Amino acid sequence: MAEKTHAGRFFEDYSVGDEIVHAVPRTVTEGDRAVYTALYPTRFALYSSDAFARKSGLLRSPIEDVAAFHVVFGKTVPDISLNAVANLGYAEGRFLLPVYPGDTLTATSEVIGLRETSNGKSGVVWVRSTGLNQRGETVLSYCRWVMVRKRDEGAPAPAVVVPDLAASVAATDLVVPAGLDFADYDFALAGERWRWGDYEIGEQIDHVDRVTIEEAEHMLATRLWQNTAKVHFDKTARDGGQRLIYGGHIISLARALSFNGLANAQMIAAINAGAHANPCFAGDTVGAWSEILDKADTTNPGIGALRVRLVATRSGAAPFELRGDDGKYRPEVLLDLDLWVLIPK
Amino acid sequence: MAEKTHAGRFFEDYSVGDEIVHAVPRTVTEGDRAVYTALYPTRFALYSSDAFARKSGLLRSPIEDVAAFHVVFGKTVPDISLNAVANLGYAEGRFLLPVYPGDTLTATSEVIGLRETSNGKSGVVWVRSTGLNQRGETVLSYCRWVMVRKRDEGAPAPAVVVPDLAASVAATDLVVPAGLDFADYDFALAGERWRWGDYEIGEQIDHVDRVTIEEAEHMLATRLWQNTAKVHFDKTARDGGQRLIYGGHIISLARALSFNGLANAQMIAAINAGAHANPCFAGDTVGAWSEILDKADTTNPGIGALRVRLVATRSGAAPFELRGDDGKYRPEVLLDLDLWVLIPK
Amino acid sequence: MAEKTHAGRFFEDYSVGDEIVHAVPRTVTEGDRAVYTALYPTRFALYSSDAFARKSGLLRSPIEDVAAFHVVFGKTVPDISLNAVANLGYAEGRFLLPVYPGDTLTATSEVIGLRETSNGKSGVVWVRSTGLNQRGETVLSYCRWVMVRKRDEGAPAPAVVVPDLAASVAATDLVVPAGLDFADYDFALAGERWRWGDYEIGEQIDHVDRVTIEEAEHMLATRLWQNTAKVHFDKTARDGGQRLIYGGHIISLARALSFNGLANAQMIAAINAGAHANPCFAGDTVGAWSEILDKADTTNPGIGALRVRLVATRSGAAPFELRGDDGKYRPEVLLDLDLWVLIPK
Repeated sequence: MAEKTHAGRFFEDYSVGDEIVHAVPRTVTEGDRAVYTALYPTRFALYSSDAFARKSGLLRSPIEDVAAFHVVFGKTVPDISLNAVANLGYAEGRFLLPVYPGDTLTATSEVIGLRETSNGKSGVVWVRSTGLNQRGETVLSYCRWVMVRKRDEGAPAPAVVVPDLAASVAATDLVVPAGLDFADYDFALAGERWRWGDYEIGEQIDHVDRVTIEEAEHMLATRLWQNTAKVHFDKTARDGGQRLIYGGHIISLARALSFNGLANAQMIAAINAGAHANPCFAGDTVGAWSEILDKADTTNPGIGALRVRLVATRSGAAPFELRGDDGKYRPEVLLDLDLWVLIPK
Repeated sequence: MAEKTHAGRFFEDYSVGDEIVHAVPRTVTEGDRAVYTALYPTRFALYSSDAFARKSGLLRSPIEDVAAFHVVFGKTVPDISLNAVANLGYAEGRFLLPVYPGDTLTATSEVIGLRETSNGKSGVVWVRSTGLNQRGETVLSYCRWVMVRKRDEGAPAPAVVVPDLAASVAATDLVVPAGLDFADYDFALAGERWRWGDYEIGEQIDHVDRVTIEEAEHMLATRLWQNTAKVHFDKTARDGGQRLIYGGHIISLARALSFNGLANAQMIAAINAGAHANPCFAGDTVGAWSEILDKADTTNPGIGALRVRLVATRSGAAPFELRGDDGKYRPEVLLDLDLWVLIPK
Repeated sequence: MAEKTHAGRFFEDYSVGDEIVHAVPRTVTEGDRAVYTALYPTRFALYSSDAFARKSGLLRSPIEDVAAFHVVFGKTVPDISLNAVANLGYAEGRFLLPVYPGDTLTATSEVIGLRETSNGKSGVVWVRSTGLNQRGETVLSYCRWVMVRKRDEGAPAPAVVVPDLAASVAATDLVVPAGLDFADYDFALAGERWRWGDYEIGEQIDHVDRVTIEEAEHMLATRLWQNTAKVHFDKTARDGGQRLIYGGHIISLARALSFNGLANAQMIAAINAGAHANPCFAGDTVGAWSEILDKADTTNPGIGALRVRLVATRSGAAPFELRGDDGKYRPEVLLDLDLWVLIPK
């Protein structure tokens, strides 16, 4: 009688080049959008209104890009991060096709790097994860690396392979959805009058609004993505009896809060980099600030791109302060995300 | 570099006659209905069953009228009540067309009155807000007035304009949805046997059931309507560290609780008046009672109208007690709503 | 003026042979599925993906069988268990037709047994409840028995009728959905490689994962099913001020947790028996274990059946311990469910 339950993979279970098919395809629906809207203060018009999306050249309102990311990410968890000690970073994330209600997403990952940690107890695993729709088209792709426990500390270390990841996605590699057109964009309906040309490199925006997080909310969110990591759900799983909030909950919260000041940043085109700087717990009150890092043009009508650092903090944090004198993230910083967003010119 | 975030309008920013186009159109869906059903103990058959709605002459089950109200109300918040000190009242609210899943709602408001308060620190703003669907048809309309802070206490007071609002919507002005027909109404499926003729003017109904409110629930609800008022989400925003519950949450809760005794009051046709009598906080246990204020006929087959006072209270309240000896609302009274509802004859 | 509110039926209000039409038909939708997915860590592929369901011979992904059960159960509550002291058991539960988004469910119950308790204060009521879709087809059916208070302790006892209920549904009576076909089943997408042949009678599985329950979550769930029993919502309704968690919340939680070890047990075909062994409260951390009780074949391609005891426990419980030396359920045991599930061969 074989052991039926799945304890997750350990560091020894990965080899560079492995292709992992992740389980449980998921049809995303208007229901998911409604739960998402109830969970986050999101108001981007393209994801709120079929009429606005059609006027922008899309078939209808897609599922929020970050939501599609969470669906794909959730599928990877049982194979990649169930025994992760830390979620170390993201790179080369690109959104390649809109995901519409009714689409069914699956996910695969390729192991692209491995390096045992110096104490021999764990190792870093790099994967490139890909989300596919029911037609087999890639809807998004990203790299992430996590520190994973070893099952047996005496197991030999694999050859070190550290992938060469881009510091950011080149503007010329951004994919703007086919047909997306902001030439006739309605700024009044979108909520702010600021265009691509109104933002300057180096500009910083304090998004002002804040949300206090409840246990029920982050668990609803994390289950919505079928993310099974027990630290998010089981208060007995960690010392101290506190459930750790899924980092993606903070990503969605920060993105939604950024509406106030970046309401026209309708779509995310790329995740250049990302770090979950500090853990977040229920009861924390979360705010966000942004900094414009770069600007680029696109060939779609009326559409420009902004590279934005989006930072989530817990209350007590002064805006725009990211790191202490020691170069480390300040303790109130929860998330440091580097994005390309699409915005009307 | 212009300030990008939106701090909301202050009293000086309004002029009588202003037409405000509110941001972020919203496509309402079956997903919104499901979240609504999870948030409130609602069981009105017309909003629960496509089959029941079709048999009543509608295309399918519409989105609950109060939910459509919240969507429109939510859109007005950033322009009307972000800096409101108090939400003072409602009048002349009418539901004009059913809202179906798939409809996209937008909202506009006209400023119809202004009066600075005597201390010069704030003023009352009256608006008539209108919800429109994707065909530009008006689905609902209501007046509300709020007390809004002044940005600069030294700013001169505008001319006083106090609109002449009806004490209640005249029965002859009620709009019954085209085709709505209760001639072949199934009382067993609807849950109670009481018809229009069974209710008497002056009759009082204690709705018996009660619900204890959680922080996660009122925040999910308020976000579902894309209502951004920070006092509902940020526990650090108010002295005392308590989040104030969106008054509309209590409206929906009271309406749902009224099922027990008014199960056949399927649709709300008008909001004659309304006051959020006292603030409500998580942990409060909320109940409701009703009083029949008036009765009227309609020209639709089998459909009558009841004018109902619907009152929400927190626990500790005796039913049917509204005001103290001083004429003020008793501290346990949360909501005093005056509605016209449609009910089979 | 008749009393308008509904206090629920008391023991004297039932007669053997009564047919009760339960109120409030419900159209189930993708929205309900999304809320369900947010509430429970469910990942069964057939209920997650339209593509997977179609490849398995169904029209599309049905609503989870347990969710359909909750909808039907919720409708019975106002007529059967509003004044119940205890929910005593289930038997002869069968799932007869898949429920698809867009279907409208109604419910009826027949009273099949009555027995006054020895102290004369209450009595046991047995009902057979049936869920029907909009075409009048039976989608599921089950017996349950509850202890109901008497209105008047002096009322005479009815004749004792105790129905003869099967200890379990015979394997030959299981209904496999027409067209369901697991011959070309994708185990990688489903999440585990274990087939019908890999499970042995007597095998026990500790499902490992656990979830800590919040007040907001169990109330959202219970309202989603329009279940009105006040003990679940009103903290002032019970001594001690704790809301009792709807037993069905634990059923769904246990079923979802059983994915880890029974991922291929895609559908539930029967509820042979069930007991809510102990009450559950917010703050409890719930886990689950299973035991394979029996195995059977079906005539559908590639589909076998497993009879499974599914047990939910709160933290502190050792897996596989059900009863104490006194023969009673151990205090940490919350649910003891006996199911037939369908699994690929």
